Amino acid sequence: MAHIDLGLNEQEFPGITGLLRFRPETGHPLGQLAEVLLRGDHSLSRGERELIAAYVSGRNECRFCCDSHSAIAAVQLDAGLPLVEQVHADLESAAISEKLRALLRIAGAVQVSGRAVTPALVEGARQAGASDVEIHDAVLIAAAFCMYNRYVDGLGTLASPDGPSYYLAAAQHVAQRGYATSPAS
Amino acid sequence: MAHIDLGLNEQEFPGITGLLRFRPETGHPLGQLAEVLLRGDHSLSRGERELIAAYVSGRNECRFCCDSHSAIAAVQLDAGLPLVEQVHADLESAAISEKLRALLRIAGAVQVSGRAVTPALVEGARQAGASDVEIHDAVLIAAAFCMYNRYVDGLGTLASPDGPSYYLAAAQHVAQRGYATSPAS
Repeated sequence: MAHIDLGLNEQEFPGITGLLRFRPETGHPLGQLAEVLLRGDHSLSRGERELIAAYVSGRNECRFCCDSHSAIAAVQLDAGLPLVEQVHADLESAAISEKLRALLRIAGAVQVSGRAVTPALVEGARQAGASDVEIHDAVLIAAAFCMYNRYVDGLGTLASPDGPSYYLAAAQHVAQRGYATSPAS
Repeated sequence: MAHIDLGLNEQEFPGITGLLRFRPETGHPLGQLAEVLLRGDHSLSRGERELIAAYVSGRNECRFCCDSHSAIAAVQLDAGLPLVEQVHADLESAAISEKLRALLRIAGAVQVSGRAVTPALVEGARQAGASDVEIHDAVLIAAAFCMYNRYVDGLGTLASPDGPSYYLAAAQHVAQRGYATSPAS
C-alpha cells in the first residue's frame, strides 16, 4: 500500500504509474522530461541512455525503477539483459564502450552527490570521446533518476506483483510508444 | 568554470540558468515542473513550497539552489528571510505550523533516500492536518530538488558572483513572473 490513497488499483498501476495518474499536472512534465532525455534524438542510443537510468536506479535501490529501466534498456540493446546485469554487477569489467563506462562513472558520482563529480571524471569522459552534450545528459539523466527513484519509494508505492513479465511488457510498450503514453516511465 | 562549455558568460548566467539555456529541450520540462510544483494552485502557499525547496537544497549543500530558493521563499513569506534561516538552523524550533514542520520532516527523509520516508513520518503529517496531495507534493518537491541540486553541482556551475543582490533580484522576478521566463529556477 502506498503512503497515500491513489484512488486506483495499485497492483494494476505499480511504481510511478499510479503516481502519474494521481497527479497528472506533475505527471505531464515528468513524462516529457523522460521522453526528451531517454528517447529524443541523440548521439547516445536509447539503450545506452536507459542503461544510465537503470544503473542509477540500482544504486538508489529503487526496485520498481531498476527493474523497469533494466528491461527497457535490455530490449533496446543488442546484447540484451545479460549486458545490463553485467553493468549492475561490475561496471569496470562490463563489455561496454570506454565512453559509456566513463559516463556511467559520472552518473555513479551524481547518485552520491552533484559535488562528487570531479574534473578528473569529466576529463576521463572527454578523453574517451564524450561530447559536452553527452556529459550534460549523463549528469541530468542520473540526477533525474535520483528524483524519480525518491518519488516512487518516498510515497511507498508497490513494485509489480507480476515481476519480470510486467517489466518486459512495459519495456516493449515504452520502446515502441515512449513515455507520454507509457504504463512504466 | 562549469565542467562543460555552456557557450555563454557564466557570471551572467550562474547555476541552473546557464544550463537551461545550453539545452532548452530539457530546460522546458524542468521549468514546467518547477512552475507546477512551486507556483500552481495549491493549499500550501508558494512561500511554504519554496521553503521545502530551500530546505532540501540546504541539506544537499547546493549553494546556488539554496540561496536562490531561500530568497524566493523569503519574498513570499510574511516572516521573510529570518524565518527561512530559522528553518535551516533548526527545523524543530522554527516558528512554522506543525503541518509544515511535519512535511519538512518528510522532505528531509526524501533528501536521504525515498526509502527513509516511514509510515510514522506520513502519519505525523496526516495528524497535523496534511492532505494526500500535500504529502505527495512535499515528497515530489523534495525529490525534484535532489535532481536540480545534482544537476547544478554535477556540472560544476558557478554560484552568482554578485551574492545576495543577485538572489533577491531573481527572487522578485520569479515571484512576479514564474519559472517559465525566470533567470533563477
